[in-house]
Amino acid sequence: MSTRFPPPGETAALEQGDVLTPNFGSDGLVTAVVTDADSGEVLMLAHMNAEALHRTIQTGEGWYWSRSRRELWHKGATSGTVQEVAEIRVDCDQDAVWLKVRVRGAGATCHTGMRGCFYRRIVGENGTIRLEGDTDKPLFDPAKVYGAPKG
Amino acid sequence: MSTRFPPPGETAALEQGDVLTPNFGSDGLVTAVVTDADSGEVLMLAHMNAEALHRTIQTGEGWYWSRSRRELWHKGATSGTVQEVAEIRVDCDQDAVWLKVRVRGAGATCHTGMRGCFYRRIVGENGTIRLEGDTDKPLFDPAKVYGAPKG
Repeated sequence: MSTRFPPPGETAALEQGDVLTPNFGSDGLVTAVVTDADSGEVLMLAHMNAEALHRTIQTGEGWYWSRSRRELWHKGATSGTVQEVAEIRVDCDQDAVWLKVRVRGAGATCHTGMRGCFYRRIVGENGTIRLEGDTDKPLFDPAKVYGAPKG
Repeated sequence: MSTRFPPPGETAALEQGDVLTPNFGSDGLVTAVVTDADSGEVLMLAHMNAEALHRTIQTGEGWYWSRSRRELWHKGATSGTVQEVAEIRVDCDQDAVWLKVRVRGAGATCHTGMRGCFYRRIVGENGTIRLEGDTDKPLFDPAKVYGAPKG
């Protein structure tokens, strides 16, 4: 798969060059952070192998590698929440990409039905740590979309 | 280290609960995405072990685990570009956190001196793929700050 891209070169080329040479880890993946192109909200973190990255660039829709299902994953194929990619960026050492997207369908990115995956704030006060959920409601019912609760 | 947090529970608790039970990978790390609290720009992707996450929550400054140096890393300790954390969020399955920060000092987050690490856009057109750099200039000189080029 990684033959789709040239191999990473020296630091100067990796950091300053104009050739995309993704620095896939030993698992063959780079990390992808996905934000809403309009609001800037971080919607999800996911992973891409060479095939997923190539398809994303070529089709303008978000493709990933599902580590749990061990398969190529066209985001939204089941739920209708396909991601239209407005921009893709790569980081200094080319082991991470940043996608700015617009989400179709119900507009939810998280499998829980929430708009994004980061729907809880970490609050540390008085020596304790707790999570505080957003008051937003899910945009779809996961049981209806996926048929059964996801493990 | 991971005894600082309760172990992850079942899916319902992990996804809907109000207890932070980070889902550290086999390498003991969660992924951290860091954005500018004001502009929303994605500044960097990094990793945290339990100690780094705990210190970040307790001190309100960004701490990470440097995989290359294999050490706890107080971001900005060398360059002065310490991160003041405005908000921390955790994702659905608690294996990633999102930090919204304000960067002190020169305001740069990337070791190249750039404001953020994602200073190149991936452009796919006419069957070719290339990188297009932002026109921004580095905010500090890495050679002066770190003494020698980073490998």
